[in-house]
Amino acid sequence: MTAFVDRLRSACAAAASLVCVGLDPNPDAMPVPDAADFNRAIVDATAGLVCAYKPNLAFYEALGLPGLNALAQTIAHIRAYAPDAIVIGDCKRGDIGESAAAYRRAMTGVWGFDAVTINAWGGIDTVSPWLTDPGFGAFIWCRGSNPGAADLQDLTVADTDADGMREPLYVNLARQAHRQSDAGNLGLVVGATAPEQLAAVRQICPTMPFLIPGVGAQGGDLKAAVLNGVDAAGRLAVVNSSRGIIYASRSSDYAAAARAAAANLRDSINAILDEAGLGWP
Amino acid sequence: MTAFVDRLRSACAAAASLVCVGLDPNPDAMPVPDAADFNRAIVDATAGLVCAYKPNLAFYEALGLPGLNALAQTIAHIRAYAPDAIVIGDCKRGDIGESAAAYRRAMTGVWGFDAVTINAWGGIDTVSPWLTDPGFGAFIWCRGSNPGAADLQDLTVADTDADGMREPLYVNLARQAHRQSDAGNLGLVVGATAPEQLAAVRQICPTMPFLIPGVGAQGGDLKAAVLNGVDAAGRLAVVNSSRGIIYASRSSDYAAAARAAAANLRDSINAILDEAGLGWP
Repeated sequence: MTAFVDRLRSACAAAASLVCVGLDPNPDAMPVPDAADFNRAIVDATAGLVCAYKPNLAFYEALGLPGLNALAQTIAHIRAYAPDAIVIGDCKRGDIGESAAAYRRAMTGVWGFDAVTINAWGGIDTVSPWLTDPGFGAFIWCRGSNPGAADLQDLTVADTDADGMREPLYVNLARQAHRQSDAGNLGLVVGATAPEQLAAVRQICPTMPFLIPGVGAQGGDLKAAVLNGVDAAGRLAVVNSSRGIIYASRSSDYAAAARAAAANLRDSINAILDEAGLGWP
Repeated sequence: MTAFVDRLRSACAAAASLVCVGLDPNPDAMPVPDAADFNRAIVDATAGLVCAYKPNLAFYEALGLPGLNALAQTIAHIRAYAPDAIVIGDCKRGDIGESAAAYRRAMTGVWGFDAVTINAWGGIDTVSPWLTDPGFGAFIWCRGSNPGAADLQDLTVADTDADGMREPLYVNLARQAHRQSDAGNLGLVVGATAPEQLAAVRQICPTMPFLIPGVGAQGGDLKAAVLNGVDAAGRLAVVNSSRGIIYASRSSDYAAAARAAAANLRDSINAILDEAGLGWP
């Protein structure tokens, strides 16, 4: 069984790309009415340029059962037309015991994702059910790209001893996650909008894969995100753009515009890697 | 528009009950094969004895699209045969911006829940999208009933000043939540397995509704949970039991056994309220 981290390496190498496309079909923004049609066009336009696709389940659930059918069609289309790409279910699920196991059955057996995003608020016993299969990846939402991320994730955690350690909560979570990562199937979500936090977490977790949202529409600095996010070899950072790619144009040329935006993001990242002596062979 | 907290009060008064039944259809435990059939029998057997039903979405998602159809049938059945009951979607969703808004559309427009459980790890800007309608309730997962709840929720948070305050993270979250609760539609999930934590949170949030899992199969102390969880009037605590009611028997008498278990839990809670001088009129 190939560990998830190695599956991810292969997907990145196949496209010489760290780019992930977030597939977030929003009726207010899509230039066509059908989510499955929209996604198929985006996938066809970006296949070969990206290492991963990341459907955010919120947008499919908001469309009801037809939306979930569109998700199934989208995943099938990626498997057929972008077979090297990893498919990450951005579901941010987190629950205890039998509920966690049930969510895992949904994301693996029902949807067949290669990996998911998860929420570790409930503690490590809500994370471990996701780690039973080394080939299946789970990315813990560690430090977000949103302003409110500071409300809990940046709080200072202290030992109860007066002279104990002090560190932000997201650092504490990264430490706890690192201890669960031996099988090569646990990663972290760390936002591009917080490049110092990204560097701090990469130092704690040198070999874990990172999923990095927040470039593009959210305005994160790409160079800082790439250089602070990659491992020592310039890999294991998956840089996600959703709106910046899929809504690059909101007219009939949306697929061509998505292709151009994905190519541009890939090339920009690869230039940063090249400059750091970490380019693709 | 009636605030959620008042809708909940009415639902509790109508049944003279603080009991919520968790509808978690697990194929390994159900005595009948079909989740919708199972839930209909449970609802028919417990209607009038309970204030709320709480389907945990994990179990429906694990069954794929047929499971989600069973969820739709279950909600429709509750509306028809237990019209006074609140229906809480136990989904523990949490995401940012447009994703949070999409999850909200799913839980309100698609499913039509009266309330949901949410995860506030992402910060207050991931909570506020749930609060736009005063009549719709959201319960933040504050302090869990599982052993791993201590991993993050019980960490000590400190001011960066040496002589600043120190408090557990779940207390900090309860304080932040309390500041968002003026509209009467924000509540907290606090586990029955941690009665001291429940008392601490009730002190900070005297008027917020609490959803209290962990009695029954998880072994929480009922008397401590009730006395520490209710408000000053002996209300606003929703005591959930899932397995303890729906799997009280795993043979053909499961509906009658569920009715007996629900009645027993209601009567036990009401005896505790009576003893404290807080009984139903």
